[in-house]
Amino acid sequence: MPTFAGLKFYFQTNLREAELRGTAMSIVEEFNDYRARMNERILAHDNKVIKRFWSLDNQTYQEGALDVKTKEMLGLVASMVLRCDDCIKYHLGKCYELGVTSDQIFEIFAVANMVGGSICIPHTRRAVEYWEALSVSSQQ
Amino acid sequence: MPTFAGLKFYFQTNLREAELRGTAMSIVEEFNDYRARMNERILAHDNKVIKRFWSLDNQTYQEGALDVKTKEMLGLVASMVLRCDDCIKYHLGKCYELGVTSDQIFEIFAVANMVGGSICIPHTRRAVEYWEALSVSSQQ
Amino acid sequence: MPTFAGLKFYFQTNLREAELRGTAMSIVEEFNDYRARMNERILAHDNKVIKRFWSLDNQTYQEGALDVKTKEMLGLVASMVLRCDDCIKYHLGKCYELGVTSDQIFEIFAVANMVGGSICIPHTRRAVEYWEALSVSSQQ
Amino acid sequence: MPTFAGLKFYFQTNLREAELRGTAMSIVEEFNDYRARMNERILAHDNKVIKRFWSLDNQTYQEGALDVKTKEMLGLVASMVLRCDDCIKYHLGKCYELGVTSDQIFEIFAVANMVGGSICIPHTRRAVEYWEALSVSSQQ
Amino acid sequence: MPTFAGLKFYFQTNLREAELRGTAMSIVEEFNDYRARMNERILAHDNKVIKRFWSLDNQTYQEGALDVKTKEMLGLVASMVLRCDDCIKYHLGKCYELGVTSDQIFEIFAVANMVGGSICIPHTRRAVEYWEALSVSSQQ
Amino acid sequence: MPTFAGLKFYFQTNLREAELRGTAMSIVEEFNDYRARMNERILAHDNKVIKRFWSLDNQTYQEGALDVKTKEMLGLVASMVLRCDDCIKYHLGKCYELGVTSDQIFEIFAVANMVGGSICIPHTRRAVEYWEALSVSSQQ
Repeated sequence: MPTFAGLKFYFQTNLREAELRGTAMSIVEEFNDYRARMNERILAHDNKVIKRFWSLDNQTYQEGALDVKTKEMLGLVASMVLRCDDCIKYHLGKCYELGVTSDQIFEIFAVANMVGGSICIPHTRRAVEYWEALSVSSQQ
Repeated sequence: MPTFAGLKFYFQTNLREAELRGTAMSIVEEFNDYRARMNERILAHDNKVIKRFWSLDNQTYQEGALDVKTKEMLGLVASMVLRCDDCIKYHLGKCYELGVTSDQIFEIFAVANMVGGSICIPHTRRAVEYWEALSVSSQQ
Repeated sequence: MPTFAGLKFYFQTNLREAELRGTAMSIVEEFNDYRARMNERILAHDNKVIKRFWSLDNQTYQEGALDVKTKEMLGLVASMVLRCDDCIKYHLGKCYELGVTSDQIFEIFAVANMVGGSICIPHTRRAVEYWEALSVSSQQ
Repeated sequence: MPTFAGLKFYFQTNLREAELRGTAMSIVEEFNDYRARMNERILAHDNKVIKRFWSLDNQTYQEGALDVKTKEMLGLVASMVLRCDDCIKYHLGKCYELGVTSDQIFEIFAVANMVGGSICIPHTRRAVEYWEALSVSSQQ
Repeated sequence: MPTFAGLKFYFQTNLREAELRGTAMSIVEEFNDYRARMNERILAHDNKVIKRFWSLDNQTYQEGALDVKTKEMLGLVASMVLRCDDCIKYHLGKCYELGVTSDQIFEIFAVANMVGGSICIPHTRRAVEYWEALSVSSQQ
Repeated sequence: MPTFAGLKFYFQTNLREAELRGTAMSIVEEFNDYRARMNERILAHDNKVIKRFWSLDNQTYQEGALDVKTKEMLGLVASMVLRCDDCIKYHLGKCYELGVTSDQIFEIFAVANMVGGSICIPHTRRAVEYWEALSVSSQQ
């Protein structure tokens, strides 16, 4: 029969491991899940201005005089200097899909840090964590 | 006797369920609890400027040439364009008490998104989650 | 024959007077003229996203679950906490047309100053100057 | 043999207690651990601009015409008005090491709240929690 | 008799000279004059929240656990990272009166630039111009 | 002999004309002149952190994993969402030299307006004025 101490140790160990193994996967999925779930709820309220604003947001990043990759990089640097972690995650996801390299991503981070200052450093930390999670996540 | 696998499954299921059922309640209570607890600690330090600043903050939203409802809506839109999640929660709570409707709240969100841009979208997601939690919370 | 010194004095006096008398009129007209002129030039470039964004901006402030006056007040307080002088001027102009009173305007300024802090004070100064200029301007 | 209900109660109680006892310790350690871990990963990418930016960030707070304590207080107030929780934590840690008193910290918070407005209040709550955690943490 | 061409040249030269000689004096006086004039007009509207907010603003920078000089330096760095030119001018004026040295002022600017990024550079340019004008202005 | 009224008319007409003709030239030159003049004064104060910060700012936009044109576009969009008119002017000047087209510039403005919201519109107006002035200025 498992003792209390044994059970306590067992669960703590398992939760810790799950936490460590799961991190890479979870921050990408967690972001996407929450985003999808809440977008659905917001659209259900049927506010026309918000719906058109979101539709326009999609159009903004479509191919034009600038290609999609450049536009996503613009969206990323703008999100970082404005320090919007979720916006950074969204554009990192897009950049990853479009084949932006790690060296390019770090040059975007460098521009953001110079323009926006050291207050961008904590956002850079979370951005790097997410960027690395994206590559782990895509290999699974 | 419960097996380890059984216990593991049992707790994971229960925690997950508790998490799901508890969400609506918890984000409202969590916010109010933390806010009340820390306000108490801050006031205990007895800094006069902070105490007067907080007292003035309360006066700002009292009935005057504009009614209380309008002032809370002003506080809400200002909090959203400045992207302060806790301030948004506070004013959403007040707006809920004062009978602001969901359609009105979404028009305030629409103004905030247009004025403050797409970086307000993640804050709108969390605001909608909190707004819906307020109505669940008040029905309990 | 006018002496150089005389001429110098004459023009300085006249320019100064013109400046003083003209102030009320000029800051309203100056804003509207520049705005109209540049909007025309921007629209001439025919960027679809910008055109739709501007059209959506107009829709945002139309009658809905909230009336036009409330929406313009929301636009004003949002502009003031984000410290955008031109946006403040635009919404002050609309509020003036819609009959928002001076007492109400100052309560909006009070909310903005409390939420956004003392960095809003210089914008409040310019806003008050513009608000008073609107009433002078409309009497002419 | 422990029943399911008993186990459930046992773990919930223990997790709750651990949570309560552990709070003071964990928010300081959690911040330092994450910061150290991610800094390492960022530096591993070897982006020269970011490396130099970080090195310059360290130089900025070194003794000069102003002493180190004053500079850390400047860094703290700047971080608070820009509402960067992690930056606040970092400078609070430095201020704690340098012997800045609680009364002085609260006067810095007062300046930040006045300059930056009521949107700084939630950051002040988290800052006070961290400041108190620093003193608990250092006594262990 | 002065020819038109002669007069044109005369006035242009004189205005140019006046402009050059007058610069140091004018930006300090211009700021103080406009500030005093508009403050008077704002207070005439007798909004209680704004009056108390301003009174509290004064209290914030009074001697306490931190001396006045330190508090003005905190106000200056906060104003610079929030990029409020008029607030910068105000605190530069106070710092000048309190005997803060140029080397100290530049270290405050350095902290502001690092924390707030290269978007602070244009504000630093105007701040340096004002700081130098303060010393010219006080020698007259 | 010229009458006072004649002289008054003459100068007003000439100043107005000069103003109109000179606009394109002056906003580009005015920006560059002030920038060069103040940079010189700032560097004369010999603050090491500021000097290194500025040197690092230059390195940030040099050829790397991303080409110079892309980096200047990143600098431009970051400056626009952070609403720094002088920074916008600087990067517009660089983009102009590097052959970024008007259609591309407007797509950058579109991204900035969507990400940063309608508070970017007044900055877009001034940016378009400067962009057009750059092409007039380069033809002279």
